[in-house]
Amino acid sequence: MARILITSGPTRQYLDPVRYLTNASSGRMGAALAQAALELGHEVVVVSGPVEVDYPAAARVVPVVSTEEMLEAAQHEFEAADGLIGAAAPCDYRPRLVAEHKIAKTGEPLELRLVETDDVVATLAADKVHPERGQRWVVGFALETEDHRLRALAKLERKHCDLMVSNGAAAMNSETNDVEVLTPTGDVLGHFVGPKEEVARGILSVIQARLIEGPR
Amino acid sequence: MARILITSGPTRQYLDPVRYLTNASSGRMGAALAQAALELGHEVVVVSGPVEVDYPAAARVVPVVSTEEMLEAAQHEFEAADGLIGAAAPCDYRPRLVAEHKIAKTGEPLELRLVETDDVVATLAADKVHPERGQRWVVGFALETEDHRLRALAKLERKHCDLMVSNGAAAMNSETNDVEVLTPTGDVLGHFVGPKEEVARGILSVIQARLIEGPR
Repeated sequence: MARILITSGPTRQYLDPVRYLTNASSGRMGAALAQAALELGHEVVVVSGPVEVDYPAAARVVPVVSTEEMLEAAQHEFEAADGLIGAAAPCDYRPRLVAEHKIAKTGEPLELRLVETDDVVATLAADKVHPERGQRWVVGFALETEDHRLRALAKLERKHCDLMVSNGAAAMNSETNDVEVLTPTGDVLGHFVGPKEEVARGILSVIQARLIEGPR
Repeated sequence: MARILITSGPTRQYLDPVRYLTNASSGRMGAALAQAALELGHEVVVVSGPVEVDYPAAARVVPVVSTEEMLEAAQHEFEAADGLIGAAAPCDYRPRLVAEHKIAKTGEPLELRLVETDDVVATLAADKVHPERGQRWVVGFALETEDHRLRALAKLERKHCDLMVSNGAAAMNSETNDVEVLTPTGDVLGHFVGPKEEVARGILSVIQARLIEGPR
């Protein structure tokens, strides 16, 4: 039995009290991964952005809104975890300034300066070795609209992941998915297509064999 | 029996195939208004942005994503309508440029130039007099985080509405609401607090008495 932390859903980065940047991540892939992990007998914590999806009742869910909150909650939960599946799509830009009141229209263009948020998966993976509990594993997700495999491998390396799940933008807010599971050496350990529940079971079977039971 | 057009929900303005600007409008107020209008025997068309809410089965729903799409669909549906209730929260800014592929992070700030979208309610209200069907009525919604009544009245005048419903940001994605219904002369015709279903019945009773049955 492993303790698995899953990040799921989008985050929101507010410009003012009303408007925000986000993406169409539905949390369905995270919910399916939680279910597949529970079916294998693991303990599951989900740190989730705002979604309508229902997570399995047996998973503990920590709700967050912004990427900063997701990172903080995930760092806290990672302390007691054996591994991380970073299925969330956190906003990777935030407005440099957040207006206290709703920005009134003036008829003029609005110049918005966005700065990068901290990368949740990369930050946790940089801290993989726990002083008491040893090496933990990290599985990332890469969503790209071009050069999927190449960009996914570059992300795997940059973020120090043990495996990277590569998918396309069609995965967003969809019932189905089409993913490849890549290793640091570029091997494809699995190619799963179908309903997210089935794809999640495929991904978990690779994680089980390679990261939980097998030698890394 | 009147034919009532209701706009509902948020819209999305994409920066690239993944990221977009939006707000937390849930469509619940629009769904409650549709239900209240149907209960009074009216015919209802809802032009709705992406929401999870269920609209009444007896309402015809036209789904849209962006503010441009909402405006186009609403203009088309307004042709056959007696009045408009603009309960949607369309994005009022859009990126000047939309990237074809997902914008890759560079480590540098991202400068985003936003331009105002066309105002859906104001555009329709500017065209209130139908060549064959006469004067149509327009009810707007104002969501402000400060000086609610003053700003709502300014919006009423600028957008040429017959009535303006004023509420605060707490209305967003909430089960309840707290609204005032204002006339062009600043009279408060109703103050409704409670579940959105009840608030919607209150708003519709004012519309019924003032715009559908009564003299304007």
